[in-house]
Amino acid sequence: MILCDIGNSFLHFYYRGRIWKEDKHALTPKDPKETIIFISVNKDSTNALLRSHNRCFDLCDYLSLDTTYKGLGVDRVAACMAINDGVIVDAGSAITIDVMHQGIHLGGFIMPGISQYRKMFENIAVLDQDMNFAVDLYAFPQNTKDAISYGMLKSIVLMLQTTSKNKRIHFTGGDGKFLSHFFKNCFYDDLLVFKGMQKAIEINFTAKGIYL
Amino acid sequence: MILCDIGNSFLHFYYRGRIWKEDKHALTPKDPKETIIFISVNKDSTNALLRSHNRCFDLCDYLSLDTTYKGLGVDRVAACMAINDGVIVDAGSAITIDVMHQGIHLGGFIMPGISQYRKMFENIAVLDQDMNFAVDLYAFPQNTKDAISYGMLKSIVLMLQTTSKNKRIHFTGGDGKFLSHFFKNCFYDDLLVFKGMQKAIEINFTAKGIYL
Repeated sequence: MILCDIGNSFLHFYYRGRIWKEDKHALTPKDPKETIIFISVNKDSTNALLRSHNRCFDLCDYLSLDTTYKGLGVDRVAACMAINDGVIVDAGSAITIDVMHQGIHLGGFIMPGISQYRKMFENIAVLDQDMNFAVDLYAFPQNTKDAISYGMLKSIVLMLQTTSKNKRIHFTGGDGKFLSHFFKNCFYDDLLVFKGMQKAIEINFTAKGIYL
Repeated sequence: MILCDIGNSFLHFYYRGRIWKEDKHALTPKDPKETIIFISVNKDSTNALLRSHNRCFDLCDYLSLDTTYKGLGVDRVAACMAINDGVIVDAGSAITIDVMHQGIHLGGFIMPGISQYRKMFENIAVLDQDMNFAVDLYAFPQNTKDAISYGMLKSIVLMLQTTSKNKRIHFTGGDGKFLSHFFKNCFYDDLLVFKGMQKAIEINFTAKGIYL
């Protein structure tokens, strides 16, 4: 059983404790005897996976979350299923922030991913600069590079501080580890989505004696 | 005397109490007897102005501010010159935030403009939505449109709240009026940059009996 989380930029795989990502245009062959159990937010990449491997199983319909949010991406549902109480931050192409309280999803919001901020300033010549990821967030910037880095990083950190209050933050996604450095008592777990998928498999199949 | 603030998107004019903006490709003829006194952060637009009108005067070298910030745009310098104590927020293609204390510039930072946030999500199909500018900033969003609107607006508002503390915020720029609605006891002044330019003209010329 191989797990696959199909995002907007990459396909993320989990197999026997190992995780890696692949581009939809360069999918490697997998053991034909294994079933790839996937969730997806991207049709093109899903089709690429289905073409590359015969035994695929779409887990989307088996994920469920107690929420009133309309249109929550399946990757966010899966990550939230893995956490009973806390703030889940998935920092990829976009940064999604979701709040779980006693197993109930209270809502969430979306900010641009760190790489997207960089792109935003590409059209303004004087602001088209690399970020300073080590900028001091507690002193007013004194040059352009620090000014755009501070504007990006501090706004993300403030939003997470305000949202989390007394809840723990669980970071995941490509930039999750970096963002976790700005918080004490937080977790970084690059398996969060896969843990939610495993929980859905356990509830819907394994507990009923069905092995995919 | 016509004042002109040349930004990255438009040329902004001030003449006899009236302000308006023009595109660099569609500059209207001005009274040839009037001098256009300008500051600029954009070379192409400056050249367009110089081609369109014979009597132009570059005020950039006459602006000055007590600061250690390197590379502060002349429009930001002008706006800061108009305020002795307070936070100056110029919300255009980018949002610039500067802090003035007893006539001294303490530093500043830059966030993407509201229209830039919208563009950031254009590459992510499911997030390519219009903003809800009336989203509730004090309840967790329950759908994608609110989620991206909340992520944008609340992050800007939090940054301004954290920066201003007990200082007054002075908003200017195209989106300044909209952002000012989120704050009590703030000012909106679309003449801020021009007021700084007038101050520089007063100090450097008028006070010495020189009339441009």
